[in-house]
Amino acid sequence: MEETEEISVAEEKVVDISLKDLAEKLEEFARARDWEKYHSPRNLLLAMVGEVGELSEIFQWRGEVDKGLPDWEESDKEHLAEELSDVLLYLISCRDICGIDLGEAATKKNCEELVKYPPKSLAERR
Amino acid sequence: MEETEEISVAEEKVVDISLKDLAEKLEEFARARDWEKYHSPRNLLLAMVGEVGELSEIFQWRGEVDKGLPDWEESDKEHLAEELSDVLLYLISCRDICGIDLGEAATKKNCEELVKYPPKSLAERR
Amino acid sequence: MEETEEISVAEEKVVDISLKDLAEKLEEFARARDWEKYHSPRNLLLAMVGEVGELSEIFQWRGEVDKGLPDWEESDKEHLAEELSDVLLYLISCRDICGIDLGEAATKKNCEELVKYPPKSLAERR
Amino acid sequence: MEETEEISVAEEKVVDISLKDLAEKLEEFARARDWEKYHSPRNLLLAMVGEVGELSEIFQWRGEVDKGLPDWEESDKEHLAEELSDVLLYLISCRDICGIDLGEAATKKNCEELVKYPPKSLAERR
Repeated sequence: MEETEEISVAEEKVVDISLKDLAEKLEEFARARDWEKYHSPRNLLLAMVGEVGELSEIFQWRGEVDKGLPDWEESDKEHLAEELSDVLLYLISCRDICGIDLGEAATKKNCEELVKYPPKSLAERR
Repeated sequence: MEETEEISVAEEKVVDISLKDLAEKLEEFARARDWEKYHSPRNLLLAMVGEVGELSEIFQWRGEVDKGLPDWEESDKEHLAEELSDVLLYLISCRDICGIDLGEAATKKNCEELVKYPPKSLAERR
Repeated sequence: MEETEEISVAEEKVVDISLKDLAEKLEEFARARDWEKYHSPRNLLLAMVGEVGELSEIFQWRGEVDKGLPDWEESDKEHLAEELSDVLLYLISCRDICGIDLGEAATKKNCEELVKYPPKSLAERR
Repeated sequence: MEETEEISVAEEKVVDISLKDLAEKLEEFARARDWEKYHSPRNLLLAMVGEVGELSEIFQWRGEVDKGLPDWEESDKEHLAEELSDVLLYLISCRDICGIDLGEAATKKNCEELVKYPPKSLAERR
């Protein structure tokens, strides 16, 4: 019971990161380091492609992988968690620098749809 | 003034999507359509790579692109918003299916760090 | 017998495409269409990422796939052949526009090694 | 003059690598190391995506890059040459393992077209 509570608190801390909060924290972070000059849309896109590459490398020689990664080492899971986060961070930064993530009609519509409908590729390609 | 209020409400609705909420909605969505059988880690990873490709195609012939996309057509921005969302959805689904996104030590540590520190590539490669 | 001969001739024609010949044909092709203005290194790189995405989409919902694709439809194989070629063409164009593919010391060394040694990832990551 | 000859000989050696020769050498190489067991279509595809990521990392913080890379360090060009080769090698290996690269009608047609016509994306997306 204690453990459950502990987990739910920890979960809440982690899980409560909204897309907007992430974007703000990343922006602050880049500003503090004077990295904003590097943050053009195509730079961030290529950085994201780079991280997708690192993510793929984790999976490349494994053949099919089961849900939940039952037989992975803990260190491999941590590595995976890091690479997934790196992709997420550049994705959010890219959205942010393109100015299309907050409050705009296009995004609003899109965010609502993304909950109601599948990405088009899901529907079309099966 | 009315418009401002309307926007801020809409924003709140959109922005309040946390990573956890997104993961839950995507899971529900897949379950309802009996698509869970397609959702293996490598299938979702490749689907994400596919969406990253579509995102890249939007930027491929444009040369350097300015922050905020000042001279883009509205329809191009909507297309971009959709592709960014598609990448995000598969990324979240991939995290979820790997079982490393919620409450685990690895992820907690990672999520905390992701706010405090840059992805390693930022630090190392400049 | 006649058919065999025909095939072997055709094969020879196809297979004899060297990297240099491909690069030259692609350059001619772009020049004739006045497309050289689009061919900057990062444009071609992003175009290649786009094609890698299309390639990934072919494999995304299939789970593990056997060598030789024994149970694939002929039309799927043709689609695959096209996407593989598209990646190849942009890769060659990207090499070419960067000016590092022909006769330079770096490339010579690299091309010789590429036959003698594995890409580093093969050696390191297994 | 001597130098020219030396270069042209070296060039010939390098440039004379046809797609078929490359595929054969890579196959031999993998066989000799007992790596064929790792060479499934999706493993090789993901390995290629990994190398495309490494290629993107070279370009990610540079903004637009001029043709011929006039102001790049020699070591950066060598790094680029290596990553381009790594992508090529996995692409060829992937073609080979899928059994669609040599002598089949689909590929022949495709290889002929690839010289006569642009990849579809070139035609459609400009």
